[in-house]
Amino acid sequence: AMDGAPPPASPTGLSAYVAVSQLLGLTLLATTGAWLGCYRGGVAWHSPLQFNAHPLCMVLGMVFLQGDALLVYRVFRHEAKRSTKALHALLHGLALVIALVGIIAVFESHRAKGIPDMYSLHSWCGMATFVLYLLQWLLGCGFFLFPGASFSLRGWYKPQHIFFGITLFILSITSCLLGITEMLLFKISDSYSHFVPEGILANTLGVLLVAFGLVVGYVLTREEWKRPPLAEELALSMDFKTLTEGESPGG
Amino acid sequence: AMDGAPPPASPTGLSAYVAVSQLLGLTLLATTGAWLGCYRGGVAWHSPLQFNAHPLCMVLGMVFLQGDALLVYRVFRHEAKRSTKALHALLHGLALVIALVGIIAVFESHRAKGIPDMYSLHSWCGMATFVLYLLQWLLGCGFFLFPGASFSLRGWYKPQHIFFGITLFILSITSCLLGITEMLLFKISDSYSHFVPEGILANTLGVLLVAFGLVVGYVLTREEWKRPPLAEELALSMDFKTLTEGESPGG
Repeated sequence: AMDGAPPPASPTGLSAYVAVSQLLGLTLLATTGAWLGCYRGGVAWHSPLQFNAHPLCMVLGMVFLQGDALLVYRVFRHEAKRSTKALHALLHGLALVIALVGIIAVFESHRAKGIPDMYSLHSWCGMATFVLYLLQWLLGCGFFLFPGASFSLRGWYKPQHIFFGITLFILSITSCLLGITEMLLFKISDSYSHFVPEGILANTLGVLLVAFGLVVGYVLTREEWKRPPLAEELALSMDFKTLTEGESPGG
Repeated sequence: AMDGAPPPASPTGLSAYVAVSQLLGLTLLATTGAWLGCYRGGVAWHSPLQFNAHPLCMVLGMVFLQGDALLVYRVFRHEAKRSTKALHALLHGLALVIALVGIIAVFESHRAKGIPDMYSLHSWCGMATFVLYLLQWLLGCGFFLFPGASFSLRGWYKPQHIFFGITLFILSITSCLLGITEMLLFKISDSYSHFVPEGILANTLGVLLVAFGLVVGYVLTREEWKRPPLAEELALSMDFKTLTEGESPGG
């Protein structure tokens, strides 16, 4: 947006924040792995350890990959819009597949242990987030990747897509925090209040999830770091500029 | 921001969203009251029911009042900036005092029952949110209410204040959801998975908290609904406009 703000900052600031986000993302995965590996017996399919695939898949798909998919327009800000869009859709698609595996893991593990499904606030928030995330991905493909949607329709949908995209990312992190709390109170309810290492580690995972969301959110909302239109996307009139922001993939 | 977006929508849309937010806010309080009143014996100070003051105060202060404080610049968009600022600071200050009462309630109730403090993810998130919220309020008063800060300093701090303000509102709602999950697993861990009414009611409170955050967040981030500068705040040059956005309370 050109509203008299200072000229774009050097991308050094952006690069540093993106680097921190990736460091946090990898630390997230390592911390989840350490929790499951050191205290919960590891991860395996077709075994009593199947449940442990759930937190690992959800942190990898719904947090790390979803966050990186959101960052794509900032990181590859000088690449062609078409390829950046494709990468954005691809990362979200990968996140969806991995999250689906994580959801199957918890349903199968519940069935094996005779535990009811979908009764907790974590399951309500998590399932709503996943279904809306799938819907958002389908709508995103329909509006922005396939050539059918008109320029004005894309222009109308774009701010909605961005708002609900960030909302779903926040809800994903919130659902993870609820899952951590549930798992700790199921597994170590007696020792949790005595500051045992597993409790501290899992709490730290929660704090890292919040920190990842905070850094990604800061990068996404900073006005000067928004993707500048490329030379071929620029036009003389404001109206035409609005049109080209929703250009077709072949444009 | 003037980036070729369509002209400001009629405030009817804004009014409808604000009305829905207030309806949701009151429903939040009623639902919290119903949970505590119907299933948890009610609320009382200096009694075993003292703990129940905690959820009530946190939902009232850290969610409802904090959310309304954020909406002030949208609802009173045509009032003088000075009085709108004062109301914004006042509502946040009230929220802080009520939240402090809620925090005292849980610490005193823990002491009475011999329960350790600050071991859970809920307590880590909640306490971090409260301390940072207090800090944000002090910084906000220092930068925007007292006459000492320079125009350029205010201009630099304003986007940070907005970003962290929305972040703290989201973290407050997240902390409430964690608290609901903890309380249900402490109180009805045996019956929660059988879809008992108390579990459904408390889950619904969680969904309502998310819905309130969603509506408030939508109103805050919609570009056309941002507070337009008043006639006396408008200036011919962009540079001067940037200055007046951080005008002193007496200006």
